Amino acid sequence: MSTRVLIVGTGLIGASIGLALRSLGERFDGEVLGWDPHVQESATALASGALHRVLPNIEDVFERDVADIYVLAAPVLPILDWMERLAPVLGPHQLVTDAGSTKRTICDAAARLYNGAGKASFLAGHPMAGKEAGGAALADAELFHGATWLFTPPIPASPLALQWQAWVEDFGANVREIDATRHDELCAWVSHLPQMLSTALAALLEDTFPGDAVAEVQAVGGRALRETTRLGSSPYSMWRDIALTNTEPIAATLLALEQRLQHLRENLRTPELREEFRTANRFRAQQPRP
Amino acid sequence: MSTRVLIVGTGLIGASIGLALRSLGERFDGEVLGWDPHVQESATALASGALHRVLPNIEDVFERDVADIYVLAAPVLPILDWMERLAPVLGPHQLVTDAGSTKRTICDAAARLYNGAGKASFLAGHPMAGKEAGGAALADAELFHGATWLFTPPIPASPLALQWQAWVEDFGANVREIDATRHDELCAWVSHLPQMLSTALAALLEDTFPGDAVAEVQAVGGRALRETTRLGSSPYSMWRDIALTNTEPIAATLLALEQRLQHLRENLRTPELREEFRTANRFRAQQPRP
Repeated sequence: MSTRVLIVGTGLIGASIGLALRSLGERFDGEVLGWDPHVQESATALASGALHRVLPNIEDVFERDVADIYVLAAPVLPILDWMERLAPVLGPHQLVTDAGSTKRTICDAAARLYNGAGKASFLAGHPMAGKEAGGAALADAELFHGATWLFTPPIPASPLALQWQAWVEDFGANVREIDATRHDELCAWVSHLPQMLSTALAALLEDTFPGDAVAEVQAVGGRALRETTRLGSSPYSMWRDIALTNTEPIAATLLALEQRLQHLRENLRTPELREEFRTANRFRAQQPRP
Repeated sequence: MSTRVLIVGTGLIGASIGLALRSLGERFDGEVLGWDPHVQESATALASGALHRVLPNIEDVFERDVADIYVLAAPVLPILDWMERLAPVLGPHQLVTDAGSTKRTICDAAARLYNGAGKASFLAGHPMAGKEAGGAALADAELFHGATWLFTPPIPASPLALQWQAWVEDFGANVREIDATRHDELCAWVSHLPQMLSTALAALLEDTFPGDAVAEVQAVGGRALRETTRLGSSPYSMWRDIALTNTEPIAATLLALEQRLQHLRENLRTPELREEFRTANRFRAQQPRP
């Protein structure tokens, strides 16, 4: 019997999941359904081949047995809302999984609403992939190839959960399990801090060089400027939920970086600057080539 | 009569200049000589075709009329040293130009040592191009294509200075004139601050995740981590001189960024975070596509 996958939120991540599933050929013989609050997004995903069909109304998502696997691909607060609303209409033969950027609040909600007797299973996931702009138009069947896809325990033992993890591996993703609290702390360092830094730098430059002055900045700036401000394009809509659901770890990394910048500033003319460069060189030397 | 160009420092920038000159075909009918304190660097530059020949000894650089144009492609402090040592042995029919990363100290030295009656001309320049690693082995005839190449007044009126600027345009660079003090302030924002930021972040991560823990960081981290720490590979040897000759502007930008990060940290749960993202989005929206 073929598996019906319903993607709730067919933006960049959701539509890329649809494309990746459908590119699996005979390893995926199911049907991909989609719904998005923006009709244009689901229409784009449908036109690109990410979906077999679009559910026209939000009520259709709650229709009994409309799908076997529900993939919540949205910012964290809407994911939490969908988890609350879907739990009462789903049963133990169904699986909900997600692509949310923070995992502690989602795993807390899952412990309350899913994975118990008579309840649907919930598999918390986080594909570490994306682009600085969103939307179904940028979706890519190869988005997850070579990317890390994290799952946070408890991993339900249901056949659908096993099936989903197998498909994710078929996407070419590197699957890892990580505790939800550790996930949120680690992501604060490797994802949320770089984002906040890039936003702060781009906002600071925008305010420091108002009007036409910014053209001179951008003429003089090269790759260093482009790369360190690239994430400044990221939309607030997604990052609001990350900041709200991972506030303390993000604040801790920001404070540590502020102190490190101050240390570097106070040592621009001392041998300590050499130590900072050497320590940074060591970090980079251990980084795998992309 | 063909022009002899002597490149002093045949690393990434120097060797790329040699390759770019020699790729000009009949627009450059001169000879490219080179010298580097590291014999391996000049040998690599020679083997790659960046140079017609290598000067074997440092004394050869000071030999009377060994070249018409001297290109100083080194960190700032060695450039200042070469300026001092070359001035007494050069005459008004010769030109010295440079590729130094900061311009105020170099222009101060030029005003004292060059561009006067009976003296050689000095044209202060700065190609805004590079890679996070140096060396002649990475040299590229196309390195300056599409990059900005800044010259800081006074621009000498000598025929060789005009010739040099014409060749730089032939490299495909966008030539701009900019006052030396303005140059150093602007470069503090678009180049030195991104560098210090990337170094501080990479060093902080190295110290926070010692030993094997860094492998988990790098498995979880994606493009955001790679891009914001990429410049952490940069060598101290070059940046020491930038920090020493542009201390106050760099310190001012670091302090401004520290304060901006603090502001963002204190507003992770307020609507002010939205304003920061929107301001950053505006900066990025004005940035030309690479």
